[in-house]
Amino acid sequence: MSRKLNFFAGPSTLPLEVLQEVQKQIVDFHGEGLSMIEASHRGGMFEKMYDECLSDLRQIMGIPDNYDVFFLGGGATLQFTMIPANFLLPGKVADYCRTGTWSNKACSDAKKLGNVNVYFDGTESSFTTLPAPETVKPSPDSAYVYLCSNETIGGIEWQDFPDTGDVPLIADMSSDLLSRPVDVSKFAMIYGGIQKNLGPAGATLIILRHDMLDRRNANLTAYLDYALHAKEKGLYNTPPVFSIWVTGLVLKWIIANGGAQGMLERAQKKSSILYDVIDSNPDFFRSPVDRRYRSRMNVVFRLPSEELEAKFVEESKAAGMLGLKGHRSVGGLRASIYNALPVEGVQTLASFMTDFARRNG
Amino acid sequence: MSRKLNFFAGPSTLPLEVLQEVQKQIVDFHGEGLSMIEASHRGGMFEKMYDECLSDLRQIMGIPDNYDVFFLGGGATLQFTMIPANFLLPGKVADYCRTGTWSNKACSDAKKLGNVNVYFDGTESSFTTLPAPETVKPSPDSAYVYLCSNETIGGIEWQDFPDTGDVPLIADMSSDLLSRPVDVSKFAMIYGGIQKNLGPAGATLIILRHDMLDRRNANLTAYLDYALHAKEKGLYNTPPVFSIWVTGLVLKWIIANGGAQGMLERAQKKSSILYDVIDSNPDFFRSPVDRRYRSRMNVVFRLPSEELEAKFVEESKAAGMLGLKGHRSVGGLRASIYNALPVEGVQTLASFMTDFARRNG
Repeated sequence: MSRKLNFFAGPSTLPLEVLQEVQKQIVDFHGEGLSMIEASHRGGMFEKMYDECLSDLRQIMGIPDNYDVFFLGGGATLQFTMIPANFLLPGKVADYCRTGTWSNKACSDAKKLGNVNVYFDGTESSFTTLPAPETVKPSPDSAYVYLCSNETIGGIEWQDFPDTGDVPLIADMSSDLLSRPVDVSKFAMIYGGIQKNLGPAGATLIILRHDMLDRRNANLTAYLDYALHAKEKGLYNTPPVFSIWVTGLVLKWIIANGGAQGMLERAQKKSSILYDVIDSNPDFFRSPVDRRYRSRMNVVFRLPSEELEAKFVEESKAAGMLGLKGHRSVGGLRASIYNALPVEGVQTLASFMTDFARRNG
Repeated sequence: MSRKLNFFAGPSTLPLEVLQEVQKQIVDFHGEGLSMIEASHRGGMFEKMYDECLSDLRQIMGIPDNYDVFFLGGGATLQFTMIPANFLLPGKVADYCRTGTWSNKACSDAKKLGNVNVYFDGTESSFTTLPAPETVKPSPDSAYVYLCSNETIGGIEWQDFPDTGDVPLIADMSSDLLSRPVDVSKFAMIYGGIQKNLGPAGATLIILRHDMLDRRNANLTAYLDYALHAKEKGLYNTPPVFSIWVTGLVLKWIIANGGAQGMLERAQKKSSILYDVIDSNPDFFRSPVDRRYRSRMNVVFRLPSEELEAKFVEESKAAGMLGLKGHRSVGGLRASIYNALPVEGVQTLASFMTDFARRNG
């Protein structure tokens, strides 16, 4: 086979070694006589794999002991409901930083469930910039401050995070999970759909500080209640086994490639290659986002015309590069270069970009 | 490898041919140069697979055109919330048939969200029987009648379903989905976790009649709102791609094995083999459930003592049979014999049971 270069925004590319390991084990998991996806989540074969996955996560991310770690279904989208349902109690206000499509969706759901303060609204700048972290101050009576660490559509990423003191800081890290070291202790909750940097779609990673459970709405239905999932270590109901298993394999790959620091170096290298091409051809390429917050995961750029952009998509596809069309809501071009995408793949794209500019500039 | 006989209650056994097909395609999906789990859910490769899966489902289950069909995350457990959140409006009452652990959980969540009438309570009979379908009458102002078609822990299954007239009938079919032909038009909603009869854990199948959307609470947050998922054909957010893909392969396997009618014949054959062993050794085996409602999916039985039950579990495991221990909440023994379990596997278990009775009776 000729493997495509996969720049999809998610689901997206996985390490080839991981896919090959899945292929090896999918029918008969290490000689156990059944597949991991056929094993009971109440049995030893699943439990061993699951414990190892969680323990690797704790180690690589440096998750302190006073945090629960588990996976849920329903994507980040279900978390847009669960977070305010659990933590936005009457008499409190939740501070949302509206920096793009994802935090905007989270904010809209929260408004249906309680009082919301939009403490930063990127609408005015068409979501091309972020607030300086040191300017982010919680409201009085703030239940929590909410942000999305990387907006995949706009292509902007928080480089540093605000210090919200005693007010819980909650972050959607769906699109830059484990792409860099993060001081988990600064956050009351970190969560994210795993389908960009960690594994196949179908699971959402939840990292939640214990004390948040005491602040929650205690009268929720079962699935919406974080306390139940925490108590049952994510196994209150059947978990998304395959997604968890493959995440475990991706974590081993991350460890073998330098851990969170290794992923940061990869991401810096890969994103620099592309931003360098953009910056060195200012008459042809344009990055619409504030330089200070350029995403290392989703490199968004424009060409002189929409016609050229369509041509770029078409020619790049013919050259074996998938997913370079920008999100339908904003147009333009976008290269999503998550952890698993090799540096060489980005170099290939960079050469293609340079050549395309030369031929069409 | 020596393939185990897998009697787990779910996740559970899949057709070997399906696992082998996954193995073949997992690295490079039909020469496309990427895995299905790496493909964007907004792209043609996913869409083609998804459309085929939904269309096969419609065909095999005979789903009328006025029903939406899609998959969600969060398991059946999230549906325990979503159903009353959407359909149990103020001034209405929901009729729940409490026939075991699963309908009981659904009922408990509904009580948190509105008025509930428990129109049948199996607690008194330790969940060993069901109401006769013709006796099931909705309350005045009933928003819907709710039942669980097969209770995996008690091992009881509705053989026929009530006629609730204009009142919507909603069924959790997690554990007997596509194990028999069902007249979908009798139901306003059928749903189920797919991890028993249809595929790997991580997706819940939703089959919902269009007019239910007009009866729903229109002020829900995004993920909880069926109308949004229906409008976006299940792609409002990233779907559980792997579970859907493998379900599609299982559907092909079901078609090749006689469709819903073929599955019913398999289930009748397999369950009869086990119930025959139980009934022909009444001094040794005991089925605790009402004969009229014996499950064709989960055959629950007891031995003369708990010591013998423990011995049975141990020896059956040594003989390559997994998952025969009853649910921790009720004890005893249980053989889950979902669609994919071969008839020969059940025959092997039956021989083992007969021999065990002879040796220990």
